[in-house]
This record gives sequence, structure tokens and C-alpha cells, in this order.
Amino acid sequence: MTSRIYNFSSGPAVLPMPVLERARDELLCLPGVGVSALEISHRSPWFEGVLADTEQELRRLVGIPDNYKVLFLQGGARLQFSMIPINILRGTNKPADYVVTGSWGTMAQGEAKREGTVRTAYSSKATNFDRLPAKAELDLDPNAAYVHVTSNETIQGVQYASDPEAGSAPLVCDSSSDFLHRPVDISKYGLLYACAQKNLGPAGVTIVIIRDDLLARSDKNLPSMLNYQAYAAEKSMQNTPPVFAIYIVNLVLKWLRNDMGGLEKMLDHNRRKAKLLYDVIDSSGGFYRGHAQPAVRSLMNVTFRLPDDAAQDRFLKGAEAIGLEYLKGHRSVGGMRASIYNAMPVAGVEKLRDYMRDFAKKG
Amino acid sequence: MTSRIYNFSSGPAVLPMPVLERARDELLCLPGVGVSALEISHRSPWFEGVLADTEQELRRLVGIPDNYKVLFLQGGARLQFSMIPINILRGTNKPADYVVTGSWGTMAQGEAKREGTVRTAYSSKATNFDRLPAKAELDLDPNAAYVHVTSNETIQGVQYASDPEAGSAPLVCDSSSDFLHRPVDISKYGLLYACAQKNLGPAGVTIVIIRDDLLARSDKNLPSMLNYQAYAAEKSMQNTPPVFAIYIVNLVLKWLRNDMGGLEKMLDHNRRKAKLLYDVIDSSGGFYRGHAQPAVRSLMNVTFRLPDDAAQDRFLKGAEAIGLEYLKGHRSVGGMRASIYNAMPVAGVEKLRDYMRDFAKKG
Repeated sequence: MTSRIYNFSSGPAVLPMPVLERARDELLCLPGVGVSALEISHRSPWFEGVLADTEQELRRLVGIPDNYKVLFLQGGARLQFSMIPINILRGTNKPADYVVTGSWGTMAQGEAKREGTVRTAYSSKATNFDRLPAKAELDLDPNAAYVHVTSNETIQGVQYASDPEAGSAPLVCDSSSDFLHRPVDISKYGLLYACAQKNLGPAGVTIVIIRDDLLARSDKNLPSMLNYQAYAAEKSMQNTPPVFAIYIVNLVLKWLRNDMGGLEKMLDHNRRKAKLLYDVIDSSGGFYRGHAQPAVRSLMNVTFRLPDDAAQDRFLKGAEAIGLEYLKGHRSVGGMRASIYNAMPVAGVEKLRDYMRDFAKKG
Repeated sequence: MTSRIYNFSSGPAVLPMPVLERARDELLCLPGVGVSALEISHRSPWFEGVLADTEQELRRLVGIPDNYKVLFLQGGARLQFSMIPINILRGTNKPADYVVTGSWGTMAQGEAKREGTVRTAYSSKATNFDRLPAKAELDLDPNAAYVHVTSNETIQGVQYASDPEAGSAPLVCDSSSDFLHRPVDISKYGLLYACAQKNLGPAGVTIVIIRDDLLARSDKNLPSMLNYQAYAAEKSMQNTPPVFAIYIVNLVLKWLRNDMGGLEKMLDHNRRKAKLLYDVIDSSGGFYRGHAQPAVRSLMNVTFRLPDDAAQDRFLKGAEAIGLEYLKGHRSVGGMRASIYNAMPVAGVEKLRDYMRDFAKKG
């Protein structure tokens, strides 16, 4: 059998080994059930239990207040880019404010423009999205239907270190690439959403946490599959949900609580991992140059460039030769991107750190 | 370890054992790749290969002409109920004709009504959806944007035995619950769609086969995730597709070709399996009463009632005691439903047949 490599992909991304092992052990036959999680009815008591338990685990882990619904959807964050304005902008006669701090925020705003009036409350495009706004830099409309932010931009590697502050309008946050990497105060958000394939599970399921007053905005005549109220009314079971993906999310949440000790400890762990790499960058005498401004560096995606393309090619080849893979950065930023989500083991980050140190010495 | 039971669920439904075994064997680490299919990047050479190969397998197995695109989407058939009228009805100034032969057709029509002018070309609601229309019974509008049919109604167990004929407008077919159970002449369809969780794989991926002239109807300003043209342009990779679900579909397609010998042989196999159960119903002297009229009985979902509720409860309990599970019919039809999709082994159907015979004797 091939041995496992270290997977620094920005997503879909590395999952915890205990989760994969459990999924493997049960793949032919769930204990006491007699069928695989890949083939079981969503109306079975087993899955109804898994779905309810997944919501409860999430509510407990994050501390989700009772006036918020938790929805499980398909279509990724990209579908939310449209569903959000379709559900909570349409019919308000208000604009939506977008704080654009990277590629995903840009795309979210682009989809929203098809659905209503959209403003740019801030954009760091001029500096290729290397920074976040100070509060005074935000051009907010106090009458906005909502303010949209992206808590972590995977391509640029910029991240809010705490819950974003964005004025009086309801805060809507794309937390796809950093949800569950730290504690979050949900009461500060009107809506928070995340696709699973970074910190939560495999691609194919998306979680939306929405406050009841925003949920009430959905037009009842929307297509069922685009209607937050319909998902809430049917507890995410108006059609067949992605059963297997939700089962894996359930296992990941249990791993977070039982093996990792919850979100406070997860944050400590993530800070330690990210520091290993940023310290190498900062002590390399300019050999490695980080993309994000130091104050807003992401704990999830460490983006950096080498002196030139030839060095970058050698870096990638050498890394792959020792099992450090998917390190190539997005073309819009160039260079490298080491994605070190919750499930990336410290050993993987240490191996990359050692490789980076050695590579910088040899040139 | 619990032993596997026979899973007669209408969907998600039983998958082939060789597929499950392969998925289990590779779950921690894809050979030569070093990560799990649950955590690999959709931009990896491995997945780009799987996606292209899945489309090629499907094109070869079904015989899909070059003027059709194959799209992989999320959201199940239910999202297609809306996406179809949004993409190919809007802007045509024409009505859409719906041939309503069961619960799913009813729901498809209901969603379409939100998007445009919708006609009922036929409905068998008056007889609780136990039949299909003769050609003369169809009230078709020759100017319709399309005619929608449901090739198999899982709840009622009525099925078209061959490609439906429905006049001159483009034929749109929900084939969610019987796609790949027999050969299909794709050239007779404008659009054919199927969610995976019956004959194709796990819940979480939906396949749309669309002819180029219908694809051309999509308004370019639709939300990207609802726009067939956007999926076609990006080869289903405009966002992260459900990687693991598509990988399982790939394995199922290879099983269909290599282990089952293709669609002609699959159909023979399915006919033999269904006959085992319908013969018991027909020779039970009225103890079992089929729901569907004999000429339109489904090869996928065998629906039947017992003399009374008490007998039905005893039947279900006795079946579960010997590992025949998920046989309870939908409440709108009552009685039993034995779903015997492609992957249900003959041994499972034989065991159910024997149980039905014995139960009818004992009363």
C-alpha cells in the first residue's frame, strides 16, 4: 500500500486519521445497522440520528444560540453566494454591503450583483488583497440589508483573527475556510456559512447558521431548493441530503471535541502550527516573502513567494520528493501556499518547516 | 462485525459490494496518490482523471451522442425541478407540458409553476397514479418549450418500459430512479437527468445530459450555480464538485460494464429479478395486490399491499427478523415497496420471494 503523504491542499483538504479509519472500518456495514453509510436511506433511524446529533454537536461546540437555525445544504459556498442575496436581499429595497478582501469575496459580490443593489464597503484589490480594513476604512451604508465579509481568504492567506466588526447591519460571513478553527461568537452574526471541505469534512455539504429574523426574509415562492425557510421547516430533509458527507462531518465534530479538546484548544494548536512556518519566513532574510501583511496572516493558508520561478519549481519538486504535496499557490498570487487546516498534523508542518529551512540555506 | 442485511430502500439504495470493497480498501490512501478520496483536491490530476473517465464511461455505456453535454451537479433531482424551467422555459414565451404519473412528476410540475407557464398534458392522479398514458391520452401543446416525463415513479412503482414518446417538443425526462437499468436512446431526449442515489452511487451528485440546442437557452445572467451553460463551460468544475460521490459513481459505472456486462445484460437481469416478485403477487390468489397496473409495473420498485394493516405489520416484522429491511411503502400508497435496483443481488430478491410465499401460506 502507498503510504500517506502530507496534503497541503487548500481544499478539499486533509481529514483527521481517526475519522478516516472509522469511516473505513464501517464502510461495508455500519455496526448494528447492516448497510453502508453510502447506501442507507436518509429516512432511516440511523441517519435521522446522525443528522440530529451533528446539529447538536455543532451547537454545543460553537455555542449556537436558540434563535439561530442550522441548515445543511449542497452546492458549496458558491451556491450561497447567490442564495444569500436571493433570500435576504430581494424584497428589502436596500443595498447589500460587501467587504472585499480577496478572490472569494470578489466572487460572492459578483453573484450578488445579479440579485440586487450591491455596494463595495471596502476593497483591497489595489494591493492584491494583502490586508484587511481598519474600522475607519469601511464605507458602510447603515441602511444595508446586510454586510458580507470573508473571514479567511484561502488564495491570499489573509484572515480576521477575531469576529469581524462591520457596523449595524446584519453581518453575513463566509467562513468556509476557517470555520471551527477557533471559538466564534455567533450572536455577532446574522448568517454564517461554510462549505465542509476545509475544516468540516468532504466536499458536498455546506452549513448555514442563520438568525431567525433573517430567515423570515425568504420569499415563500422561491424554488424549494433555494429557500432557507423550506430547509428550516424540513430540518434540511426536504430532499435527500448528502448522507455520507454529513456522517463524515459528524465524525469530524466528535474528533474536534474528544480528541482535540474543543475550539479554544484547537486555536492554540493552530497558532502553534502557523507560527512554525511564519517564523521560517520571517527569519529567512528575505528569501521567503509572505503575501499577507503580518498583522492579518492566516492561520489556515500560509502564502509566500521564493526569489524567482526557478527556485519555486525546485522547491515544489523537492517537497514532493519527500511527501509534502499540493503546495503550489494560486496563479493570482503566485509562489507557495501551505494550507494547514485543523486536521493537518504538527508533524506535517514540522517537516515542511525543516524543508523550508534547508532549502533557504542551499538556495 | 454486524453482517449485512438486504436493503430494499427506495433510495439511497444498495450499492454493489465490489464498489464498497474497493472504496474501503482505498479509503485511507488512494494507491499511488497518498491521500483519501475524501480529502483530495478537485484540481488534482487524480480527480481530473476520475471526472473525465466518469464522463467517458457514461458516454460509452449509454451511447451519448456528441451533441449532448454531460454535467455533474449537486442538489438532487429536486434542484433540477427548478433548474430545468429556469434554464429552458424562461424567456421562451412558451408553456411547458408535464406528464404527471406519480409523486415525483407532481413535485416537478409544482416547482416549474413558480418559473413559468405550465400545462398538465396528462395526470393519473384520479387513480392514485397506477397507470401511464396511451399516446392518444396526451394533451400536448405542439408549441411547448418541452415535455416533462418521469420514467419511473418510485412511490407508485409505475415505469415506462421503453423511451417515452411525447410529441414534437423536446422530451425532458426525470430518470432518477431507473437510469442505467436498461439501454436508452439518448437521441430521443432533449434533457435527461438522474440523481445518483438509486442506480449510480451515493446521494450528493446528480447527472444532467443535455442537448446543445437546449443548453443554448440558458440566460447568461443566471446565478452561476443554476446555469447549465456555466457548468458546461467549466466541465462541472466551476466550483468544487462532490469529489467522493463522483468517485463512487465512477466505480459503479465500471462495475456495470465489467461485472454486469453492460446495459442489455443489466436489463435482462432486472427483468428476472422483478419477475420473481410479481409472480408471487400474481399467484397469491389476491393475498398480495400490486398497486401499479400490470402493463406498467416497475422493474425497480415493486409496490403491493397485504389484506390489512395487521398483516402488513406482521409482514414487516417478520421480514426484518430475517434481514429483509426497508420494505415499508410510502404512506400515500400504503403497503410494501421492494426496491430492487441494479445492485440488489438476486439472492436478496429470492429470499424475499421465499418469505412472501411462506407468509401468504401462513396468512
